[in-house]
Amino acid sequence: MAVGPDIWPEMHIIDGVRIGVAQGGIKRAGRDDVTLFEICEGARVAGVFTQNAFCAEPVKIAKQHLAKQNVRYLLINSGNANACTGKLGNAAAMKTCNALAGLTQVDASSVIPFSTGVIGELLPADKIINVLPQAIESLDADNWTRAGRSIMTTDTRPKGASCEVNLGDKVVKITGISKGAGMINPNMATMLAYIATDADVDQALLNKLAKRAANLSFNRITIDGDTSTNDACMVIATGKAGNATLVDEASPEAETFAFALIDVYQQLAQQIVRDGEGATKFISVHVRGGATHQECVDVAYAIAHSPLIKTAMFASDPNWGRIICAIGYAGVPNLDVDGVKVWLDETLIVEDGGRAASYTEEQGQAVVSKAEFAINVDLGRGDFEDVIWTSDLSHEYIRINAEYRS
Amino acid sequence: MAVGPDIWPEMHIIDGVRIGVAQGGIKRAGRDDVTLFEICEGARVAGVFTQNAFCAEPVKIAKQHLAKQNVRYLLINSGNANACTGKLGNAAAMKTCNALAGLTQVDASSVIPFSTGVIGELLPADKIINVLPQAIESLDADNWTRAGRSIMTTDTRPKGASCEVNLGDKVVKITGISKGAGMINPNMATMLAYIATDADVDQALLNKLAKRAANLSFNRITIDGDTSTNDACMVIATGKAGNATLVDEASPEAETFAFALIDVYQQLAQQIVRDGEGATKFISVHVRGGATHQECVDVAYAIAHSPLIKTAMFASDPNWGRIICAIGYAGVPNLDVDGVKVWLDETLIVEDGGRAASYTEEQGQAVVSKAEFAINVDLGRGDFEDVIWTSDLSHEYIRINAEYRS
Repeated sequence: MAVGPDIWPEMHIIDGVRIGVAQGGIKRAGRDDVTLFEICEGARVAGVFTQNAFCAEPVKIAKQHLAKQNVRYLLINSGNANACTGKLGNAAAMKTCNALAGLTQVDASSVIPFSTGVIGELLPADKIINVLPQAIESLDADNWTRAGRSIMTTDTRPKGASCEVNLGDKVVKITGISKGAGMINPNMATMLAYIATDADVDQALLNKLAKRAANLSFNRITIDGDTSTNDACMVIATGKAGNATLVDEASPEAETFAFALIDVYQQLAQQIVRDGEGATKFISVHVRGGATHQECVDVAYAIAHSPLIKTAMFASDPNWGRIICAIGYAGVPNLDVDGVKVWLDETLIVEDGGRAASYTEEQGQAVVSKAEFAINVDLGRGDFEDVIWTSDLSHEYIRINAEYRS
Repeated sequence: MAVGPDIWPEMHIIDGVRIGVAQGGIKRAGRDDVTLFEICEGARVAGVFTQNAFCAEPVKIAKQHLAKQNVRYLLINSGNANACTGKLGNAAAMKTCNALAGLTQVDASSVIPFSTGVIGELLPADKIINVLPQAIESLDADNWTRAGRSIMTTDTRPKGASCEVNLGDKVVKITGISKGAGMINPNMATMLAYIATDADVDQALLNKLAKRAANLSFNRITIDGDTSTNDACMVIATGKAGNATLVDEASPEAETFAFALIDVYQQLAQQIVRDGEGATKFISVHVRGGATHQECVDVAYAIAHSPLIKTAMFASDPNWGRIICAIGYAGVPNLDVDGVKVWLDETLIVEDGGRAASYTEEQGQAVVSKAEFAINVDLGRGDFEDVIWTSDLSHEYIRINAEYRS
């Protein structure tokens, strides 16, 4: 069950990146679960990681290895998160890095490990190491689609986005995959994303863009309000397109590139919401008119986190009472409720502290019966705004999370 | 569906309070939905109200009338919340106050109105007014049980608590009822409670105790994280017991009384959690060892609000990974995860950043298979602690909230 058509885009090959995939037997037998990104020398890599205090062992290692800025391989396993596994978990993750480094003749710190799956069980390092030769053998620049499936856990479909963009007289490509279904929240919940471009981007700028794009995408989605221990979003810039190195964020080329990159990030993030556990609706919550940016975010999350609203949306019930209730408890200081307006798409449902005079239940029903719609709020007290994306709360969510051990 | 046995306590009569009940036809036909508390002259009344910015019209009136400290009647209807109904809703609520005032020869400001039920529909004032004579005729000191049912909405059973306590050579009584099932959160979510005592309590002390007791009970429960527009918790002290007026909060008599009052409040609050929409478990979340009180509260709510944890508890799955995940994202600054310990009841499940060495899945399973248990957390960094009570998240919750228009 996922919202919207399952359209797989043309995934442009990124010169300088090859991808290998293998079956380690960590997930069910016969499923790809080990994924390997091989990155050319001289490429630049940046990333953002989970803010959870209990970050998983591979995340600790990933941060250390990334800091050395000599990344040649990303080694990803699905089926086991290697989280809350302590020193043994750390050693297991390092063992896989060392094994790959030995096979490919690089330093172990050039390998960044990622894990996603069950928390609290030790990583079966040998299962990964056993299939590294197969993963290496399968390295291919055109393996994005298979990789998109290999990193899945409770996802019902792979997530990919790709585009081309003109930078001066060069065409650069951006391609990415992501995974994640439940436990999706800001600060990089059980979510992995790998984006690569052949653009030449200065390291400092890439670091900035990695944060900015993640903030406008993966940190703007929520399914159930939980944040996980393992999340990471990596971006690789190989420089193979031969464009003039992007250095200044304010330059027209860098702006063009940034918009394209953010678009890819947002597509990948929104696909995660569309595939939210048990999701039947894709809902944009857009709050404007805030006196501060934070109060827009607070109101948007109050709406997006409310189980009562999410359940009403599942039932295609335009329950505006629950929406204004959430706005009311979002903690906006001295909110004048008479100045608040709420729309479902373009249908005004709330004004002057209550139901809009022009509103009819049929209008609201028509909007929330759709698979995709927006809850638009105007707080009427300033110029700030923000948007987040979320899903509804269904029987299926309960079924999945009562049965699956994450 | 509710957690624990449905035991209705002996409800002590409170001298100075009579209760009337009638069927106004606001809920389904044949159901009591209008409830009237008649309070003797000279009684003192205090209360706390919802913090929601969109508070309902009766709440606005209730605050104004309470401030005049001449309360003689509480007029409660279930089935319609009269929330987000603007000036018309305000006029409708005042119309019921005026009608009752006319029938009983008191000032309209001596009547405090309360409403609970559907949001956004105008209060059918005439339905209430039509049955006021019946409600008055039924006034009886021994009507607590019927009133407990009359104020219900999605509740599956009434909630009551009652006790006697010795103050010097006098015995004073405390009796209360509450209602609320979903939308339960701190700051008085769709929850009503009426507690009465025959103790003689000074107004200033009663105001203090009303806040303190609500804070330690109704503000320490959560079912789905939503807070509503209508909630109120009122306490009436008639003074008929003839004890020496309680004035000083630090006096032994006042302390004895306060503990008894808080106990009644907590029983009423916990019964709301036990009757949480779709609840199959009653869970105490106890966080100690915090460097501040706030971080204990933050961690407790992160756990109690996590749909992933609540769903796991519904499935009787001792999913400690989800618990530490919630602790990790609760926002405790510089949390040393190696110092955190977690127990299910007395079973240690997490230490040193991961699963406790002594822990077996069978032990955890045995605890969470029970209908009532505790999640105990020690943050290991200070002396503060807090406890909140919550329920699990079940299929039934989705069913109720997808079907019921609140």
